[in-house]
Amino acid sequence: MFKMKKKVFPIISLLLILTVVLSGFHPTDAFAQGFKKTDNTYNGKTPKYVFLFIGDGMSFPQITSAEMYLGAQKKTASPEIKALDFTNFPVNGVASTYDMDSFIPDSASTGTSLATGIKTGNGIINMDAAKKVKVDPITRKLKEMGYKIGVVSSVSLDHATPAVFYANQESRNNYYDISLQLANSNFDYFGGGGFADPAGVKAKLTGAPNVIDVAKKNGFKVANTKEDILALNNKSGRVIAINSRLDGSAAMPYDMDTKEGELRLSDFVRKGIEVLDNSKGYFMMVESGKIDWACHANDATASIKDTIEFNNAIMEAYKVYEKYPNDTLIVVTGDHETGGMTIGFAGTAYSTFFNKLEKQTMSYDEFNTIVSDYRKSTKVEDQKLADLLPQIEKAFGLITSSNSNAKTNADFVLTDDEQSTVEAAFKRSMEDPKSRKLNGSEKILYGTYEPLTVTLNHILNNKAGISFTTYSHSGLPVPVYAVGVGQELFNGSYDNTDINGKLKAITKITK
Amino acid sequence: MFKMKKKVFPIISLLLILTVVLSGFHPTDAFAQGFKKTDNTYNGKTPKYVFLFIGDGMSFPQITSAEMYLGAQKKTASPEIKALDFTNFPVNGVASTYDMDSFIPDSASTGTSLATGIKTGNGIINMDAAKKVKVDPITRKLKEMGYKIGVVSSVSLDHATPAVFYANQESRNNYYDISLQLANSNFDYFGGGGFADPAGVKAKLTGAPNVIDVAKKNGFKVANTKEDILALNNKSGRVIAINSRLDGSAAMPYDMDTKEGELRLSDFVRKGIEVLDNSKGYFMMVESGKIDWACHANDATASIKDTIEFNNAIMEAYKVYEKYPNDTLIVVTGDHETGGMTIGFAGTAYSTFFNKLEKQTMSYDEFNTIVSDYRKSTKVEDQKLADLLPQIEKAFGLITSSNSNAKTNADFVLTDDEQSTVEAAFKRSMEDPKSRKLNGSEKILYGTYEPLTVTLNHILNNKAGISFTTYSHSGLPVPVYAVGVGQELFNGSYDNTDINGKLKAITKITK
Repeated sequence: MFKMKKKVFPIISLLLILTVVLSGFHPTDAFAQGFKKTDNTYNGKTPKYVFLFIGDGMSFPQITSAEMYLGAQKKTASPEIKALDFTNFPVNGVASTYDMDSFIPDSASTGTSLATGIKTGNGIINMDAAKKVKVDPITRKLKEMGYKIGVVSSVSLDHATPAVFYANQESRNNYYDISLQLANSNFDYFGGGGFADPAGVKAKLTGAPNVIDVAKKNGFKVANTKEDILALNNKSGRVIAINSRLDGSAAMPYDMDTKEGELRLSDFVRKGIEVLDNSKGYFMMVESGKIDWACHANDATASIKDTIEFNNAIMEAYKVYEKYPNDTLIVVTGDHETGGMTIGFAGTAYSTFFNKLEKQTMSYDEFNTIVSDYRKSTKVEDQKLADLLPQIEKAFGLITSSNSNAKTNADFVLTDDEQSTVEAAFKRSMEDPKSRKLNGSEKILYGTYEPLTVTLNHILNNKAGISFTTYSHSGLPVPVYAVGVGQELFNGSYDNTDINGKLKAITKITK
Repeated sequence: MFKMKKKVFPIISLLLILTVVLSGFHPTDAFAQGFKKTDNTYNGKTPKYVFLFIGDGMSFPQITSAEMYLGAQKKTASPEIKALDFTNFPVNGVASTYDMDSFIPDSASTGTSLATGIKTGNGIINMDAAKKVKVDPITRKLKEMGYKIGVVSSVSLDHATPAVFYANQESRNNYYDISLQLANSNFDYFGGGGFADPAGVKAKLTGAPNVIDVAKKNGFKVANTKEDILALNNKSGRVIAINSRLDGSAAMPYDMDTKEGELRLSDFVRKGIEVLDNSKGYFMMVESGKIDWACHANDATASIKDTIEFNNAIMEAYKVYEKYPNDTLIVVTGDHETGGMTIGFAGTAYSTFFNKLEKQTMSYDEFNTIVSDYRKSTKVEDQKLADLLPQIEKAFGLITSSNSNAKTNADFVLTDDEQSTVEAAFKRSMEDPKSRKLNGSEKILYGTYEPLTVTLNHILNNKAGISFTTYSHSGLPVPVYAVGVGQELFNGSYDNTDINGKLKAITKITK
């Protein structure tokens, strides 16, 4: 789903190594050569409590669509937005995100830039683009200085964005090796999702120790029920807290699929603040990982709801800031934009209908299960779209003209064009995904997603006035929001490597 | 091409009037009710030279694509951007743009917000949404305070964005009335495009005085040759400087269509600085108006080149800042995003090929002339795409597999899918535009544009890794960049009305 491009730039790699050898390795200087001018010097106080929030795939469109969705719920006569709280932080800036392979980067390379201050290639975790030199993430240096370290993610803890805060790997796909580095780390709190390959099965290792066992042997307490997680506190020692419900990728469910009483991202942040609490301070990285996944799948509603929960998670840290304003720094950013999301669509022109998204009751991911269950449970000759129409209505609110609610719900009736699009997608979705062969225009229509689901998402998005242009990332820069000690450094336009440079300056890390 | 939506919100209008009556009309307070928190208070020095640059339709995608285009020209082994200078201004912020009709606003409503600090409805020039109350733009107040006033635009001087700095009209389409307000204004320098309806012909007025005559009668010197314009200086008095070459909408040509030796937007800014030079200072608004038009037409290359020239124009003001850093303020923003432009396309995934855009040698607008000339000059039964292939190659670099350069220029060969798309568009383009009837999916494919041209733009954009989602505007917020006296007010996230609030605070306008 998240393909890597494999490219090597020998000249750049050689230059990198020369830089390392000759100059003692000042990555920020070497890589962000004044493309954007910014000042990463700081003489002020160093904060004790440092939070870095990363919305994966979150840039201006994801934030603004969430603010418009919330605003539209007020049903005012003229449009109003409801600002996400973190956008009201006193300082903001804009960061470029390109990596050494492309203007459109991935989460491993951009994460490496945020964690270490160097630019690298697609898919690489804290190594240079030639995969020769390992580079320490800021977290290791902060740990040496006495900070406790927390890493939280709504996706698996060995996914690219959390990984860059504790691992070095040639490929983000080395899930087992990454998670082993987590288990062998001297960090203090890991929370959120689980592990993608804890037993080394996907890495085709035999006799490899399970990372959970390694972690326990190394003194980590592992909690994976709501009760055990809620019982954790700053006397619990070093902790790995894994949500009790995980999806097939060991990620927490989409916030819109989370059931009443289940833990959410904000709960893992609140708990992390308790666990990490100590007199010397802590650094916590929190990733909202499924804004990205939702936008890959062009699911605007899932993106919006995970972005809103991300704001809730940030507000947990804000309580720390309110308590210790002279000792706290909170930085919020994205690693890149995903999906080429736009608030606008050729068919709706200047109008938007954000309230229509309220009809969507589950993420694309849950609806995929409905589609695949039907495909598997129904004989080929019996498969027909009509069977799924009640489920489509329940999930997306979309109905056909023959539906008994068609008159009262006219906005949600599929047009003839839309209905043929849905029929065509249904046919493709009924084929075995392994043998499904898409032609060129179908690849644009469906990407690598379940054709029926992504088509329904596109139709609902478009009816709301939202479009996506890609199933990959885009080259849009990302916003940076900051509040607290050192906040003033984050104004202006700069490179994503500078976010690391500014954090290092503020925490007085000199190399 | 730029349709107005006509909606009235009686309750809001009533509230507006009540607000006006009861509270003495504090528009910024009344309309931007804390959706985004920002501080518009200022106790510092007031600058003598104030510049407001507005890139129409310019938001992050337009700026970033220009920076990537320039970076790609360096042909480095790994991607580099070349920052547009104004993005390196020390302070930036982000402004929301929605108006009282829609999350996706137009240039009249957003311009009104920038010029007056109130929110209003689509298409309205400096009046409330009910079209009852006229509101003064900041320029009138600054003129009273002794500042000279300059208004520069690359489109016609009576277009929405320049109009909000001197006029009050119920509709932006009242071109004659707007231009008459220009001619009757006491402002000092108007430069760039001409007038859309100077004789009142489009307004179906008979016996109406020509606005040029009115302007001259009112003491304006009107210069419309390069020589006369270059001869202007601060002894010339009040001036209207109109570019010698104008398009059918009385706008200056796209920068990429400008010939060697012809004046560009930056020339009109440089000349304005000379004309306005005086001991009491001046305010100059400069609009780059065709970034918007290019993005409406989904012409990425024309947008990029006009954005680069906009940067050049801003750098003319920056020379004033360098000379008088303690007396100058430069603010750069957009009024809204246009086109839903994204750096990313489903078919190119993580790759971009910005260098491919270098093959485009003329804007969509010039190519439209080629298409319509061919349609008019060729008998219906003789019209065939083959006739236009040499022109298509010259304008967009795109060729068919039978072209003799197909092997050496493989990247530009139309795929089978693309060729059928071009064939279908050609057929539609050969129909009389007045009787052309598009079906639903064709409206998405072509908007209201010349089918052949817009299809070629889409193909070249997509080959470069760029997409658009709409022929209208989008709801993306816009960046704000500032340098100079009072710059610090422009950091943070706020509403577009706050840009006006900040300018008023800095210039000590209290009402």
